[in-house]
Amino acid sequence: MSKVLLIGASGTLGQAVHANLGARHDVITAGRSSGTHRVDFSQAGSLAALFAAVGKVDAIVSTAGNVHFGPLTSMTPEQFNLGLQDKLLGQVQLALLGHAHLNDGGSITLISGILSTDPIRNGASATAVNAAIEGFVAAAALELPRGIRINAVSPTVLTESMGTYGPFFAGYQPVPAERAALAYQRSVEGAQTGRVYRVQ
Amino acid sequence: MSKVLLIGASGTLGQAVHANLGARHDVITAGRSSGTHRVDFSQAGSLAALFAAVGKVDAIVSTAGNVHFGPLTSMTPEQFNLGLQDKLLGQVQLALLGHAHLNDGGSITLISGILSTDPIRNGASATAVNAAIEGFVAAAALELPRGIRINAVSPTVLTESMGTYGPFFAGYQPVPAERAALAYQRSVEGAQTGRVYRVQ
Repeated sequence: MSKVLLIGASGTLGQAVHANLGARHDVITAGRSSGTHRVDFSQAGSLAALFAAVGKVDAIVSTAGNVHFGPLTSMTPEQFNLGLQDKLLGQVQLALLGHAHLNDGGSITLISGILSTDPIRNGASATAVNAAIEGFVAAAALELPRGIRINAVSPTVLTESMGTYGPFFAGYQPVPAERAALAYQRSVEGAQTGRVYRVQ
Repeated sequence: MSKVLLIGASGTLGQAVHANLGARHDVITAGRSSGTHRVDFSQAGSLAALFAAVGKVDAIVSTAGNVHFGPLTSMTPEQFNLGLQDKLLGQVQLALLGHAHLNDGGSITLISGILSTDPIRNGASATAVNAAIEGFVAAAALELPRGIRINAVSPTVLTESMGTYGPFFAGYQPVPAERAALAYQRSVEGAQTGRVYRVQ
């Protein structure tokens, strides 16, 4: 049984990933307001404290990250920067700070999203952030040491989230969180690295 | 003759773009340490002051932006954030703040780079930043009003920069800055929007 650190376990996708991976692994949960450990992963200090508390793990898995949605023409630099500091830099820090806390052959799995390649109105920040995460994963895979792998999961809108996000995603086919969780299993238990698993 | 605001005119590519566009347009130059106007485009206040001083223009063109190059395993969050705040947010601000200072049918042209899709060692930050810029351009094109267009130019390593960057780009075919400048001409004088012009 391997040790998996899951950031964002309380969210819709996080719960599905927890259910999937929890069947075969020891899953340690962390989040801003719930989970065994509390962490603000956009703060390097908070993340360093989490890694120190948890010790070595075999997989770091993220289903977390905030970005601002809103019209481009009234978006402020501060609003755009929110996603850079949270969903992007927060997850990048999981790799920059986390690789040293992974056992040999461990893995890092980040979340991006369909808007990386398929933009919508109000989503310019999300598209930029998701594209950056997918780029980062491809580049980081070239340099991670000790057989450590890194992938991203890029889901479309989740069936469970259609009540909130449906109006943004006109004509998009939603997928159940359980199906998106399979991509996390594939990343954690498979052998590939530098990949983007598109669940769309 | 249309008015073009060029950010980063003193760089290798900036000079080539200036030479190309200057043959047919009134080019106003701005940069951190040279140009008619001084601007730190990573600072929203500095950019707002530039737009106020320059007045309405027909094109905003950028050849500017810094990112940190270095090994992933020793890259700090602060080093990664440098590219987010400078090359990424700096250029995004040209769109967020600049569209209101463009005449109808004007254009914005940003710079990304080949690492967006073709990563190298030491380039994880550059890949993430360049991919984000290319994503942003595709998304922003959906929402810009009054016929305003936005594109990115994604050059490979420049012939003129091989002395400095050559060792990073083993086996990459360099292109002269003059050829990359053609892509800026295409973006400014053409009709397309949401495109990435790869000069590779």
